[in-house]
Amino acid sequence: MSSEIPALVADKISPRAKELLAKVTKFVEEECQPAEVILESQIPSDPSKRFLNSYPAIIDTLKAKAKKLGLWNLFLSNIHYREGVALSNLEYALIAEQLGRCPVASEAMNCSAPDTGNMETIAKYGNDAQKKQWLTPLLNGDIRSAFVMTERFVASSDARNINLDIKRDGNEYVLNGTKWWSSGAGDPRCKIYLVMGKTDAANPNPYKQQSVVLVPHNTPGITVERALSVFGYDDAPHGHCEVSFKNVRVPVSNILLGEGRGFEIIQGRLGPGRIHHCMRSIGVASVALELMLLRVNDPNRQTFGKPLSQHGTILEWIAKSRLEIDAGRLLVLNAADQIDRSDAKGALKNIAMAKIYVPSMALTVIDRAIQAHGAAGICQDFPLARMWASMRTLRLADGPDEVHMNQLGRLESKKVKELAETYKKRLARTEQLIQQMGITLKDHLELKAKF
Amino acid sequence: MSSEIPALVADKISPRAKELLAKVTKFVEEECQPAEVILESQIPSDPSKRFLNSYPAIIDTLKAKAKKLGLWNLFLSNIHYREGVALSNLEYALIAEQLGRCPVASEAMNCSAPDTGNMETIAKYGNDAQKKQWLTPLLNGDIRSAFVMTERFVASSDARNINLDIKRDGNEYVLNGTKWWSSGAGDPRCKIYLVMGKTDAANPNPYKQQSVVLVPHNTPGITVERALSVFGYDDAPHGHCEVSFKNVRVPVSNILLGEGRGFEIIQGRLGPGRIHHCMRSIGVASVALELMLLRVNDPNRQTFGKPLSQHGTILEWIAKSRLEIDAGRLLVLNAADQIDRSDAKGALKNIAMAKIYVPSMALTVIDRAIQAHGAAGICQDFPLARMWASMRTLRLADGPDEVHMNQLGRLESKKVKELAETYKKRLARTEQLIQQMGITLKDHLELKAKF
Amino acid sequence: MSSEIPALVADKISPRAKELLAKVTKFVEEECQPAEVILESQIPSDPSKRFLNSYPAIIDTLKAKAKKLGLWNLFLSNIHYREGVALSNLEYALIAEQLGRCPVASEAMNCSAPDTGNMETIAKYGNDAQKKQWLTPLLNGDIRSAFVMTERFVASSDARNINLDIKRDGNEYVLNGTKWWSSGAGDPRCKIYLVMGKTDAANPNPYKQQSVVLVPHNTPGITVERALSVFGYDDAPHGHCEVSFKNVRVPVSNILLGEGRGFEIIQGRLGPGRIHHCMRSIGVASVALELMLLRVNDPNRQTFGKPLSQHGTILEWIAKSRLEIDAGRLLVLNAADQIDRSDAKGALKNIAMAKIYVPSMALTVIDRAIQAHGAAGICQDFPLARMWASMRTLRLADGPDEVHMNQLGRLESKKVKELAETYKKRLARTEQLIQQMGITLKDHLELKAKF
Amino acid sequence: MSSEIPALVADKISPRAKELLAKVTKFVEEECQPAEVILESQIPSDPSKRFLNSYPAIIDTLKAKAKKLGLWNLFLSNIHYREGVALSNLEYALIAEQLGRCPVASEAMNCSAPDTGNMETIAKYGNDAQKKQWLTPLLNGDIRSAFVMTERFVASSDARNINLDIKRDGNEYVLNGTKWWSSGAGDPRCKIYLVMGKTDAANPNPYKQQSVVLVPHNTPGITVERALSVFGYDDAPHGHCEVSFKNVRVPVSNILLGEGRGFEIIQGRLGPGRIHHCMRSIGVASVALELMLLRVNDPNRQTFGKPLSQHGTILEWIAKSRLEIDAGRLLVLNAADQIDRSDAKGALKNIAMAKIYVPSMALTVIDRAIQAHGAAGICQDFPLARMWASMRTLRLADGPDEVHMNQLGRLESKKVKELAETYKKRLARTEQLIQQMGITLKDHLELKAKF
Repeated sequence: MSSEIPALVADKISPRAKELLAKVTKFVEEECQPAEVILESQIPSDPSKRFLNSYPAIIDTLKAKAKKLGLWNLFLSNIHYREGVALSNLEYALIAEQLGRCPVASEAMNCSAPDTGNMETIAKYGNDAQKKQWLTPLLNGDIRSAFVMTERFVASSDARNINLDIKRDGNEYVLNGTKWWSSGAGDPRCKIYLVMGKTDAANPNPYKQQSVVLVPHNTPGITVERALSVFGYDDAPHGHCEVSFKNVRVPVSNILLGEGRGFEIIQGRLGPGRIHHCMRSIGVASVALELMLLRVNDPNRQTFGKPLSQHGTILEWIAKSRLEIDAGRLLVLNAADQIDRSDAKGALKNIAMAKIYVPSMALTVIDRAIQAHGAAGICQDFPLARMWASMRTLRLADGPDEVHMNQLGRLESKKVKELAETYKKRLARTEQLIQQMGITLKDHLELKAKF
Repeated sequence: MSSEIPALVADKISPRAKELLAKVTKFVEEECQPAEVILESQIPSDPSKRFLNSYPAIIDTLKAKAKKLGLWNLFLSNIHYREGVALSNLEYALIAEQLGRCPVASEAMNCSAPDTGNMETIAKYGNDAQKKQWLTPLLNGDIRSAFVMTERFVASSDARNINLDIKRDGNEYVLNGTKWWSSGAGDPRCKIYLVMGKTDAANPNPYKQQSVVLVPHNTPGITVERALSVFGYDDAPHGHCEVSFKNVRVPVSNILLGEGRGFEIIQGRLGPGRIHHCMRSIGVASVALELMLLRVNDPNRQTFGKPLSQHGTILEWIAKSRLEIDAGRLLVLNAADQIDRSDAKGALKNIAMAKIYVPSMALTVIDRAIQAHGAAGICQDFPLARMWASMRTLRLADGPDEVHMNQLGRLESKKVKELAETYKKRLARTEQLIQQMGITLKDHLELKAKF
Repeated sequence: MSSEIPALVADKISPRAKELLAKVTKFVEEECQPAEVILESQIPSDPSKRFLNSYPAIIDTLKAKAKKLGLWNLFLSNIHYREGVALSNLEYALIAEQLGRCPVASEAMNCSAPDTGNMETIAKYGNDAQKKQWLTPLLNGDIRSAFVMTERFVASSDARNINLDIKRDGNEYVLNGTKWWSSGAGDPRCKIYLVMGKTDAANPNPYKQQSVVLVPHNTPGITVERALSVFGYDDAPHGHCEVSFKNVRVPVSNILLGEGRGFEIIQGRLGPGRIHHCMRSIGVASVALELMLLRVNDPNRQTFGKPLSQHGTILEWIAKSRLEIDAGRLLVLNAADQIDRSDAKGALKNIAMAKIYVPSMALTVIDRAIQAHGAAGICQDFPLARMWASMRTLRLADGPDEVHMNQLGRLESKKVKELAETYKKRLARTEQLIQQMGITLKDHLELKAKF
Repeated sequence: MSSEIPALVADKISPRAKELLAKVTKFVEEECQPAEVILESQIPSDPSKRFLNSYPAIIDTLKAKAKKLGLWNLFLSNIHYREGVALSNLEYALIAEQLGRCPVASEAMNCSAPDTGNMETIAKYGNDAQKKQWLTPLLNGDIRSAFVMTERFVASSDARNINLDIKRDGNEYVLNGTKWWSSGAGDPRCKIYLVMGKTDAANPNPYKQQSVVLVPHNTPGITVERALSVFGYDDAPHGHCEVSFKNVRVPVSNILLGEGRGFEIIQGRLGPGRIHHCMRSIGVASVALELMLLRVNDPNRQTFGKPLSQHGTILEWIAKSRLEIDAGRLLVLNAADQIDRSDAKGALKNIAMAKIYVPSMALTVIDRAIQAHGAAGICQDFPLARMWASMRTLRLADGPDEVHMNQLGRLESKKVKELAETYKKRLARTEQLIQQMGITLKDHLELKAKF
């Protein structure tokens, strides 16, 4: 299905980007979506072989096709990255929406998380040696990567709590601790971990205690303990893994940016990545709405004398879903445009809004679609239940909704001082008017109360 | 407060429009808002003098100032109207947001409903004589007008039910029936009614039975029976009136567009008007959020040891309100832009979305602000309760939410045919792939089920 | 309409109470509801005569009838009050539901706020002289009263902030300060104020600073400054008043219970009163649902070819409203029963739940009814808009929802300690089982994590 | 944890039932919950061995213990069934709440779906031979059963659409068709299917076309095609199965009740079963709230300087969850009591309310608990994600919410006629009053409008 480009955006997409968008749309529709079931059939059902073992062969076919078509690494905007392609964040956002329509599309075009965020991070903060060793093969799609940050026994939503120990020992860092939700670490192609931990736990500034270190997956002392399931899905072979580090040693040159700069890195990497996630989620929600439309118009599914689509409630579900998807799309595109105009920092509020709004919205839309499908909606015959589970993680990943809500509330509250000034001036002007007009206000008392 | 122009919109506003917007913003802030309490003091408290009697003198002062500043009739876009100003609907939308911030601002700049819709209607469908007689004084702000359509004893949300009788008798039309919610008919300056009724009740096509006739307010047989209140507010002197017509005679030349063309007229007039309403509502919601911000940061209002703003729930209210207002603004601006690019018909879905989303959203934001103000929020000391009441009407005016929801659902459902085609092709492609790859799908059965 | 007594409650209502309930129901239906419009016609429309001037004569007629029928002071349960009638709180709750169906019914049977709470307070905390002087005429319905507590410039939802000054001067207390939302103070029959203020602002225990003093309405120094409106309604002649106290002197014998015991008093009086409010609100919501049922089944109100009641969305509104009203009724009745079994303190959580749930629920039900009525729902032709406004105050009166939510959350959290104990034992038992069975758990690690 | 018996219910539970409830509570807490992980470890991970193969051995241990304690078949009330135990539905409802706290508890006490409904069905409609053959071993817990009704290619929420073909051929019925969501058919102990299909598709009365036939699981022609997953969970070995019937022959004596009486059967079996489901769901939601309480009070999980429980939003989650669970419990208990007082038919509205309210409520509570747990909440380390998935099915099982909403709306609408009568009388009484009092109502017009 062609992307719905809102009126406000239409003129801001270059002809080249429009062409790319059309190619991506076609590629998703004609190559990726038909391959979904084949991909599923290529993942072993034997639980002992689902991770660190193989990956679906069709991925390589799709990647080769995408590369040939020039549909490769489109996420990396040359506005912010030397290695990037000539696409604005706004333009790529529309492409990401298409990618979201099919679980295999992002990887097919080398645009899948967490690689994208990791590539951005290395591109932004890595030195030339680091780039050569890890960014190049990642950009080529030869290897994959993991961002290894969250920990099980602390409240990771406040990143200051992260406390895997990174101790310097001569020319090496020694890592000890356990991580979980290391997404992608189950894939046999995952060769490099970006690991966050504490190099300076005693630093009085809690934002200076953390560092990020590049750790090859096969460094001695690393064990992938198990894969976590999301609702009942294990997302093999990608996987969300618990990984332990026991005296894992890497050369000090593997540090990214420098000691104590972990916070800088995680803050820098999140902006555009969140926008990508959000736009993919818009794509997911759109597919759910399409499935709902098809289902409720199925002539074989009449209840109480009329097709489901004739029931008023169902029409409302469709209307609300359309509305909510479109509102979400505009919020995300506006945030993407704001990033292009300033940077992720200047778009902090816009990104927070998109991050808060979109996953919940998508969950609502998918849930309506599930309800419209009846029991079929919750089983493996439709992608809806899996979509829902995957979307549910996004209300937690990169910080739970509540953290972003709090941040947004605080940012908005910064206006108070200026507001108070304005309202005071207004009151002064009113009093001036009252005197000029020589009138007496019966409720002068109330007037004062208003401010 | 300056308007928040979203990133997506910034480049689409001409320098001239930006200048106008700045002037409007300043005029609202410095002239209109300080005058609010004075205006209230100029409305008689004696119930027998609130309607068809006088209007607040300060209005004329403000109108004179606005005219001098060139802030006049900005609602009428020259994209669609010869008499209009050089502003796109998108540009005016941002101006309308500012107008919404203050109840007196729209009228001060001759941009208030129902005059705006009536002027658009006469400009679009009136002949030269009609324009000369009524459009000119309306554009000058010399008179006001009413749109007289809704009836009490039928379900007016289905306009085919409207049944005031309009019978031709020689060179005259004779009107008999009763209307209500004729907004503005309580104002002594209201000189002209646009009355909808049935000229041809027997027409088998229910959309050809209705006509719109221009009826001077003082035509014999017209009685303004009473004013309706809105949650206790009578909105004097404007008023929402019940008006009876007993053998009211007007020349046949007073018909607008022609007999049986009433539906055409009401459909034609609603698009941009709804956008204006929505953007004004965005302005209303923004003021409510500002008031909430000021209140919860009032250092004198600590509860349980901390200012209200430190309570997590309140921060969420602020965050959600900011988010919802911004989502609403984008939806409306996108609809306005779509009208500029095509016309109201091409923007049907976008207008419906804005019309559904914005009033409910504004009610939610205002309600949060009320709750944050405690009992002060529901009384006359703050504008919040009145805002809420006025916003509540918008979930019913121009059709209740449910009608628009239904329409939006039906419009979206038109995609089904194309969708079914696409999904069928996708399935065919999958089967082709399966054969090419010589694989057997264990769950081929499921594959089929997916479509 | 007869009260819907839930199955769980049926056997708990004595025959005498059932008979009373039937009589009340009949009296409300046949005497009170038909008198509503007459009552309205007996309130002067001239704003200067609406307060402290007259009250509707029909009230006295209704009171006389009610007294004769023995439908008098039913709110005062003899379980807790010597002066009370032989009705449990549970039984009276069903009666209060009926009272809520009609704005005039409570007063007609001498069961209206704030008199009920004030009578309970004096009955519970007053000495014999105080009872003789004020409780007797209140119980007779000869006078009315006000509870004068809330203040405008502090956050009254935290009652410790209340700070009207009460200074002892010899044998007198001298009151200085301003109050607002003194409900009932606008009625010419209101003869006695229960005023809360600070007698000991310097007390380190913030719960010991406050006292409640009985102040006759005509004590020199008292001025009723103005009436506050609720949305657009002024609730004349009852009124929600702003009242100032300037050197108002009362004998020290007018103190209730004793100096510094204000908190004790306000905490003691709220339990059953909240239950009454809630049950009346259930009655209000029931009327709204009835009006909705009548409206959507009006054969003259077809839209798009079918009566409103055939639209799926409307049926859902009816179903949800029925469900929500019934859930609310059960919550309130259960709280009332809990008060009967223990006392208000033992029912703290139940009362909080009722107080949080019911007003919001009623607002939702009324709002649906308004929407189903179209514009008719928001004007004076139906009681819905007024109901809504009056119900909206209950999300703030006696503390905003958020305060009760917070309290309920804290009460529930007290379980944590016992819970932790239980879960620990369970884990121990699991480990014992594992050993007994001689099995090895592959995911023993996860097992630990669960607790 | 002990069951929270609401005040309204306390006196309605017999001492014997209270003793049983206490024993059940203890058994669940001390035997069932500690065994959960052991049970999980006894289900093979190899996908080819999860169904029709084995079942966890610990189940038999638990069943033996429960039987010995007399905690057996408590679901079958002797109010309605000769074979039943001396417990009212209300009393059993409290027990079912405890069973819901642990996934293994219901089966341990032979109270698990779909066996319970099937036993009720055979007890109510089966003849002596059928009872002897199937009811006896089911009541003994020797075998299990499935209710085989839903079909994949029709909208089963309207049961008239069910169309598996049942043709009589001499002394046999021949079954042809495919079913799905046959819950329990994956268990190797499942020996008997209750199959619904059409024996008389041509009958003009669509409610007479269906019959229910008893079909032994190993009858030739039956194939269990596959197990459906629920959000990734396959619920092995129980399973939700797709089952095909190809020329499956059973003697005509296997029909239940008689040809064409299928509707009677499915309507008769649902009432108490829905109550059981609902009360178990209350138990599930209670566990989720407990887990949330434990998590947010975990001293190791501070964010931004305070434990999660100190964040206002979290306290609101706790308060709302407590409130919603308690409201749901009262709704269900009231419905159970209503069944005891009349029968399932007399409790139609109450059952519908419980069925609509409880699953959605439980989903909300669980979702809050998940959010409070962060990523831990969606994985296998806590039961929350699985609870959510399982609860989600209940918004569809036994008919989607929307069907029950519709039914409830229609039942409530039956009041309209009586209501209209009442309101008419009230109006007449008002007019009488007006005349008696000799007054003129200024707004007599409005008065009329009110009715």
